[in-house]
Amino acid sequence: MQHFSNDNIKSWDRFYRTNFINCLSGFKSATLIGTISCEGNPNLAIFSNLVHIGADPALIGFINRPKEAAPHTISNIEATGVYTMNHIHASFIDKAHQTSAKYSAGESEFQKSGLGIEWKENIKAPFVAESNIKYLMELVEIIPIQYNRSFFVIGKVTDVYVDETIIAPDGFLYIDNAGSITSLGIDGYYETNLIARFRYAKSDTITEKIK
Amino acid sequence: MQHFSNDNIKSWDRFYRTNFINCLSGFKSATLIGTISCEGNPNLAIFSNLVHIGADPALIGFINRPKEAAPHTISNIEATGVYTMNHIHASFIDKAHQTSAKYSAGESEFQKSGLGIEWKENIKAPFVAESNIKYLMELVEIIPIQYNRSFFVIGKVTDVYVDETIIAPDGFLYIDNAGSITSLGIDGYYETNLIARFRYAKSDTITEKIK
Repeated sequence: MQHFSNDNIKSWDRFYRTNFINCLSGFKSATLIGTISCEGNPNLAIFSNLVHIGADPALIGFINRPKEAAPHTISNIEATGVYTMNHIHASFIDKAHQTSAKYSAGESEFQKSGLGIEWKENIKAPFVAESNIKYLMELVEIIPIQYNRSFFVIGKVTDVYVDETIIAPDGFLYIDNAGSITSLGIDGYYETNLIARFRYAKSDTITEKIK
Repeated sequence: MQHFSNDNIKSWDRFYRTNFINCLSGFKSATLIGTISCEGNPNLAIFSNLVHIGADPALIGFINRPKEAAPHTISNIEATGVYTMNHIHASFIDKAHQTSAKYSAGESEFQKSGLGIEWKENIKAPFVAESNIKYLMELVEIIPIQYNRSFFVIGKVTDVYVDETIIAPDGFLYIDNAGSITSLGIDGYYETNLIARFRYAKSDTITEKIK
């Protein structure tokens, strides 16, 4: 095992450190966030730092980098109060990755990446047509993180669209069967294989497999 | 595709909703957090809602449920200011899952789960001996999330211990080669296979594979 101190980490080249630290926190949920500006320009961007905050109410958060580095998604959410989250499947990871390129506010990543734009009745924000698991979010709160000028954006799930074949009788979603991937670092995409599901852990019994 | 509205989600049985909403946000980084209380009782708990916040300074955040549901980790962090994060490998997912059982403050999950406790010189918080990727965190800020009484705990990476064979020349960590897993929902554990790494995306070129 190799030991790296804070001083080592600080001394590294910027790209080396970015790769290393982004991988350190483990596998992530890469997701495409769809928004629209007040002027009606749709935007699509890949975000990989998502967290489940609670199931009742259904809350999900994500990290938006400082505004000068990643301005469009957060400005559109502030302006409209709604956004979509769309799972990325193995069949279109290259197109999803392409949305991380810097485009100007007037250019649509849907068009540039080749991903299909999907509008639903009475919903202002655009979905990704190719995604089989997608949901609409309503903004709850944007918390500025003073320490590095990023933002923690908290939203509430209001509408879910899911391929019904992946829903288990107990509500578990086999998102791997829809082709959803996991990401690592800033540029790695992985497919997954189920090892096990375990029963709710209790202090007086040992861990038992469901599946 | 099936559509579920907010009213549908609210009407579900609690466990069904928990499974469904926890899976919806996608694959997660399940990690064991090691802490110690002022009285010297070590604690170990599985947390799956981690986010990378930034690489310079190296910041990682996690969600702690309301204190009445999950009191020990957050209290110990508040008291001591330090904690360890330890990757979970496929070889000990059953033991890692067992740490989610409710034990009293005096009982050590290390002992109960059968995971080895590892102390390092001049570091107050305990590590998981079996983990090949682990790091020490220093508390930066605890942000209360008013909407559901959970907490967003932000820390700074100060020391990293990594199996050196997984470090790529560009700083990327092939954590899959160390056996690190990804989790889904509250009870699913998955192994991973690399599909691709892509070059930094640019607006004037198409997505290109690194590997």
